[in-house]
Amino acid sequence: MANSDQIVLLDFFPSVFGIRVRLALAAKGVEYEGKEEDLTGGKSSLLLKMNPVHKKIPVLIHNGKPICESLIIVEYIDEVWKDRCPLLPSDPYQKAQAKFWADFIDKMVYPCSKKLWTAKGAEHEASKKEFLDRIKLLEGELKSYPYFGGESLGFLDIAFLPFYSRFYTFEAFGNFSIEAECPKLVAWGKRCMEEEFVSRSLPHPHKMYDLVVEFTKKVGI
Amino acid sequence: MANSDQIVLLDFFPSVFGIRVRLALAAKGVEYEGKEEDLTGGKSSLLLKMNPVHKKIPVLIHNGKPICESLIIVEYIDEVWKDRCPLLPSDPYQKAQAKFWADFIDKMVYPCSKKLWTAKGAEHEASKKEFLDRIKLLEGELKSYPYFGGESLGFLDIAFLPFYSRFYTFEAFGNFSIEAECPKLVAWGKRCMEEEFVSRSLPHPHKMYDLVVEFTKKVGI
Repeated sequence: MANSDQIVLLDFFPSVFGIRVRLALAAKGVEYEGKEEDLTGGKSSLLLKMNPVHKKIPVLIHNGKPICESLIIVEYIDEVWKDRCPLLPSDPYQKAQAKFWADFIDKMVYPCSKKLWTAKGAEHEASKKEFLDRIKLLEGELKSYPYFGGESLGFLDIAFLPFYSRFYTFEAFGNFSIEAECPKLVAWGKRCMEEEFVSRSLPHPHKMYDLVVEFTKKVGI
Repeated sequence: MANSDQIVLLDFFPSVFGIRVRLALAAKGVEYEGKEEDLTGGKSSLLLKMNPVHKKIPVLIHNGKPICESLIIVEYIDEVWKDRCPLLPSDPYQKAQAKFWADFIDKMVYPCSKKLWTAKGAEHEASKKEFLDRIKLLEGELKSYPYFGGESLGFLDIAFLPFYSRFYTFEAFGNFSIEAECPKLVAWGKRCMEEEFVSRSLPHPHKMYDLVVEFTKKVGI
């Protein structure tokens, strides 16, 4: 890609989906202009124009052309800046596996993770069990590798790392210890944080917690 | 791939997701053994073993290794048998667009399409509007090309073609004419049906209708 490329990211600081794109751009060393959506004041005309279907961040605007949906954006970034830090495995089977588990995070982990602070009573208890059962399944995919990508940090690591920055919040609202339940997953998160581009891109766990508490108060949960 | 490859597809005849995989294998001229799941009698031990996470068809088993989730399978097929009938565009932006719209079908079209025969009253009316609005958005993506893939049938065509074989059912339950609402989409479907591998792979619209009627009677809708 030319140095004159214009790269804009429509983003929202606490979004796990936005963080994925920030991580991928940081992994590749791609400079960009981040535009924070002030979602409290309605959506920007730029967001509505660039993602008229879902009207959601993140949107990567590359030389005026929008790419939407976080996993599709991460894959796009991997293909466009393919000379640095490959994220998806080149082997079709390994690639399919990485995509399967990233899809699992979106379909199975994300929804019950939110319920940890939105649900009450029996539904809250059920979401705790679901959440832990599902991240244990994911933990199994690490096998004996340091990263989900094997010997190096890759696509599935980037798909799940934003959730690592919410572990503290999940634990606070779920009243459980992820380290006790999934020690390999916590060790994985710490290992990833040793990468400068990761620690720079992930919000501080306490900041994430404060934002969630603020959210729950605002909507009266 | 070697001729000695063992390719098994765990499938269920009326499934739009199963049909996608059948279409992709047919497009590539890949021979395989289809194993129909008799879902009425519980799930097979092979399905539970090969897709322990979601326990759903389709599952492509390639030399003993399972690949799950229809769009991931279609992409896998495209990569493994890359010498014939390319399905995904090679350009990263075009590829991201094809994936965005395939994801749109799964998230936005599939759920409201099912409501055409499961919902009643106001919810049914709402699902009709949603369904038509959403397939109109999709129709717009055809632009002036003969296929979603441009000049040749590709990934997004395969993602949506199984729904074309349900158009008759959607119309019967929705009491609308898709041809009146989306003439370009109907013309696209007819054009695709001129491809032998498509007409061979898609169930007959009346057969799909009969199966849906049978289903609604069985579950008492």
